Amino acid sequence: MTHTLVLLRHGESEWNKANLFTGWVDVPLSDKGRREAARGGELLAEHGLLPDVVHTSVLKRAIATAELALAAADRQWIPVSRSWRLNERHYGALQGKDKAQTLAEYGEQQFTTWRRSYSTPPPPIDPGSEHSQDGDARYAVLPPEVRPRTECLADVVVRMLPYWYDAVVPDLRAGRTVLVAAHGNSLRALVKHLDGMGEDEVVGLNIPTGVPLRYDLDEDLRPTNPGGEYLDPEAAAAAIEAVKNQGKR
Amino acid sequence: MTHTLVLLRHGESEWNKANLFTGWVDVPLSDKGRREAARGGELLAEHGLLPDVVHTSVLKRAIATAELALAAADRQWIPVSRSWRLNERHYGALQGKDKAQTLAEYGEQQFTTWRRSYSTPPPPIDPGSEHSQDGDARYAVLPPEVRPRTECLADVVVRMLPYWYDAVVPDLRAGRTVLVAAHGNSLRALVKHLDGMGEDEVVGLNIPTGVPLRYDLDEDLRPTNPGGEYLDPEAAAAAIEAVKNQGKR
Repeated sequence: MTHTLVLLRHGESEWNKANLFTGWVDVPLSDKGRREAARGGELLAEHGLLPDVVHTSVLKRAIATAELALAAADRQWIPVSRSWRLNERHYGALQGKDKAQTLAEYGEQQFTTWRRSYSTPPPPIDPGSEHSQDGDARYAVLPPEVRPRTECLADVVVRMLPYWYDAVVPDLRAGRTVLVAAHGNSLRALVKHLDGMGEDEVVGLNIPTGVPLRYDLDEDLRPTNPGGEYLDPEAAAAAIEAVKNQGKR
Repeated sequence: MTHTLVLLRHGESEWNKANLFTGWVDVPLSDKGRREAARGGELLAEHGLLPDVVHTSVLKRAIATAELALAAADRQWIPVSRSWRLNERHYGALQGKDKAQTLAEYGEQQFTTWRRSYSTPPPPIDPGSEHSQDGDARYAVLPPEVRPRTECLADVVVRMLPYWYDAVVPDLRAGRTVLVAAHGNSLRALVKHLDGMGEDEVVGLNIPTGVPLRYDLDEDLRPTNPGGEYLDPEAAAAAIEAVKNQGKR
């Protein structure tokens, strides 16, 4: 028996559009992002790939993406689970900063390291600064040592995997088609795990927005289709190009 | 310690607008219904009444009402649970029928009995008929004896209360502010229970759409404010009048 997992990266947010680092800042989808999400749901319906359960982060751009995609696929009624463990990578002191300005200020090497290095996080965000999540009720249950002030992708892998094992895998084992609606880096962390990618390999991995990515997993939850299959391969290729050019406007 | 419960009846659906009996048919909100839902969320925010968890039916008009209200209150990230036990009353063979036409055809007495009698259900819907939910995946786990073909309000009380005790009450006991986004009759059933209303009394009870209704419950989960408090009493009074006149166009 194979298990069916569908990954969906949220579409354009207001801060993607404005070219700002976002991370854990809770920014809404842009109109384009809302259309991308609905198109993602249409693709699910067209392929008869109907989720039985959905997992999202606690950030509204992923939550709204799931809602809009499921509405387009007429599956709003399925059970929903959310976790901060599926959140985007915390971007530390870069949260709220302009990407082009950061590139100009720190140079391409530092910029690329912060964006793409596996194990070098940006500087931590100051407590109480405008774009930190201090005092945000959704994280109030978490003791301070587990609330990131910055993260590299390695940190995301470490905090995401417990949710994968404890919440997503049991749904897959129960025979459910699982949709995970999340973010560029939480999904990169999951794909790295699923495909057994090395740290160097994952640096070059881009996941396009709004295009469902299907994995078929064997009994050991290893992909029978390594790398997965995008439901719209052409749109995926175009979107990957767009992501690569972020910050270079 | 008191417990805080907020009830929210979904706003106008496409079939409310068209004056059709809906029941378990999964009809979307109208634009007006979407505005009502967002307004409900604004009222929650204005009153500082922020839900920690939300329970909905499995029907999209209640699900979308919860989503839009929580978006307006910036609380999309709270945990969500859904159950068919919070669904609208099953309207039996009347599902999909025009209310004014039904009134003209069967007369005021029969019409009022079907709409308002506590213990007389409409005729059951035929298996396989257009507006039955046979084959609907969301009910596939339910054995046939628990899937209604028609319901009176007494039936709704019986199938709703297990969800109240098993899913909603534990959230209240844990100190959470609970939002229940549901339907005219599943909420009438709950209010009957909370306020200890008699069968005759509940016949005259109307719950307005889109206006949050707050209950404060004591340790025995009895209201310290019997009847609850609408966050916008004037809008509630106006909406109750509108509901009373349904079918009389």
